[in-house]
Amino acid sequence: MREIQLSHGGGGVEMNQLINQLFFRHFGNEILLRGEDAALLPVSGPVAFTTDSFTVSPLFFEGGDIGKLAIAGTVNDLAMMGAKPEYLSASFIIEEGFPYADLARIVESMAAELAKSGARIVCGDTKVVPRGAADKIFINTSGVGTFPRPEQSRGISVRNLKAGDAILVSRDIGSHGACILMARDALQLGSDLKSDCTILWPQVEALLQAGITPHALRDATRGGLAAVLNEWSTASQVAIELEESAIPVCDPVRGLCELYGFEPHDLANEGTMVLALPAEQAQDALGILRQFNPAASQIGVVQASDRHKVILNNPWGSRRYLELPQGELLPRIC
Amino acid sequence: MREIQLSHGGGGVEMNQLINQLFFRHFGNEILLRGEDAALLPVSGPVAFTTDSFTVSPLFFEGGDIGKLAIAGTVNDLAMMGAKPEYLSASFIIEEGFPYADLARIVESMAAELAKSGARIVCGDTKVVPRGAADKIFINTSGVGTFPRPEQSRGISVRNLKAGDAILVSRDIGSHGACILMARDALQLGSDLKSDCTILWPQVEALLQAGITPHALRDATRGGLAAVLNEWSTASQVAIELEESAIPVCDPVRGLCELYGFEPHDLANEGTMVLALPAEQAQDALGILRQFNPAASQIGVVQASDRHKVILNNPWGSRRYLELPQGELLPRIC
Repeated sequence: MREIQLSHGGGGVEMNQLINQLFFRHFGNEILLRGEDAALLPVSGPVAFTTDSFTVSPLFFEGGDIGKLAIAGTVNDLAMMGAKPEYLSASFIIEEGFPYADLARIVESMAAELAKSGARIVCGDTKVVPRGAADKIFINTSGVGTFPRPEQSRGISVRNLKAGDAILVSRDIGSHGACILMARDALQLGSDLKSDCTILWPQVEALLQAGITPHALRDATRGGLAAVLNEWSTASQVAIELEESAIPVCDPVRGLCELYGFEPHDLANEGTMVLALPAEQAQDALGILRQFNPAASQIGVVQASDRHKVILNNPWGSRRYLELPQGELLPRIC
Repeated sequence: MREIQLSHGGGGVEMNQLINQLFFRHFGNEILLRGEDAALLPVSGPVAFTTDSFTVSPLFFEGGDIGKLAIAGTVNDLAMMGAKPEYLSASFIIEEGFPYADLARIVESMAAELAKSGARIVCGDTKVVPRGAADKIFINTSGVGTFPRPEQSRGISVRNLKAGDAILVSRDIGSHGACILMARDALQLGSDLKSDCTILWPQVEALLQAGITPHALRDATRGGLAAVLNEWSTASQVAIELEESAIPVCDPVRGLCELYGFEPHDLANEGTMVLALPAEQAQDALGILRQFNPAASQIGVVQASDRHKVILNNPWGSRRYLELPQGELLPRIC
């Protein structure tokens, strides 16, 4: 087949062919292949459950594509609870006429990212809508994760920041947002800027194995670093004080931000996490994070305060609030 | 707000307002309101997990709307495994400019159907795409169900039909497909035809409580009765023999089928299930099903055979195979 047709979503012969020839071939595993109405998951205790729909445009960008993003995004939401990503669903909404080769490329990319995460796709759904009713393809993934270390995971919460905690980021920020912006405007900056899109469970697993007890973890997606820290300060009723000069930003992202008037801390990331943890664990945690990316840094501290705000200290001694982003920077960033 | 704007999906101030004022207000529960990256589900044993995306057009139809459908569809996939629907995710892809009042109506409809099912929405996602990138709204729901009666649920499988089993349907077939067809063509047949869209867990729960041990359960959605029975005969390696005259079809559906050249058994249902169970339980099961809908009927039997096909006996003594539907009858039926 060259193109996806309406019949590929019709519940009959053609849909079965698509499922068998493409989805089962690349995602196949014992649970998925049972082909029941719902997958049976052999879990034995509490689980984490999350969902995300992906509408990114363009579908293919430097460092990733909608398929990689759909796996990484949901795996990361689980990992940010200290949960081991185990079972994913994949639901496709495809525009009639979408090239089969592009769908296959996306599915292969999903399979490759899944393999890195250790998670499996155990159930799915395919809808095809007439030309013009959707722009190419949207993917929803939902995920279920388990808690191999419940005693450590229990403490991880948006509400659990404590005065004195160190705030870390796992790498330089803003590359996904900047990369999509470049792709949209077909900008050629002569840079090798790539999206940070990747799964974060290996980092989280390494931290937990080393005995680190994070108070909060969050991947800084839509709304970027600014959204995460504002949410944390409000939910935990603390102030967060950041050193602007300590926030790692690579040169191409900084350049693009100057060009467009954006702030790196408002840009989306898809494989960059923010951590709040006891100050005495900060050096050990940074040591582990730097094995994955040398730009991992401590960028601030949590303070007891009646003003539940995020404060940005710049190198020249001035202070300002870092506010929650408003408006829409970049539609269809993820 | 009058219309959904791109900023409602931007991860900042406006998205938080939408989530708090609409989604949390109608779906609010202890787990959802925690606002973590993933929901913590206090399960203690195996679970069922399923996903479905809904793209139905029109959004509002006789007997339901995309919101009711999004809850019923996923609840039913869980119920068809004998699993009690407990935790749902809800992920919205909304076109810029979509009327807020319509979104509110959809969300209220979801909340009403949720209340009937006993399930809760525990996590979600909102994406807004620019005008023209999606047709109004698409909704994905994924669901997690538990097994209050594991010994009964274990036997329910597409592979578990046995020679001698009775095949039942829980009501007359084809009303969802017929209803969407009418709405598309703005047909006025002077009939009060309504979609069957509803949750099926109450029926399944009643059957299990009465000690019925179904061998297979399936809601006959896309592809209708024909798709379910063909899938079963193939997976269980049996023949299924149906009496055409025993298949309940209401007059408006029969009339529409004659008008358009459709077969009722190919039309989609959204609250109608097919059951395979030991013949000696058929009368008890029908007694229970008829408390929900008097049209519940036994329509056939399972036979040992080398030909894993579905055979339709018509009242005049002729026999034919009932094939898996081909092509696309009605795009965006669900």
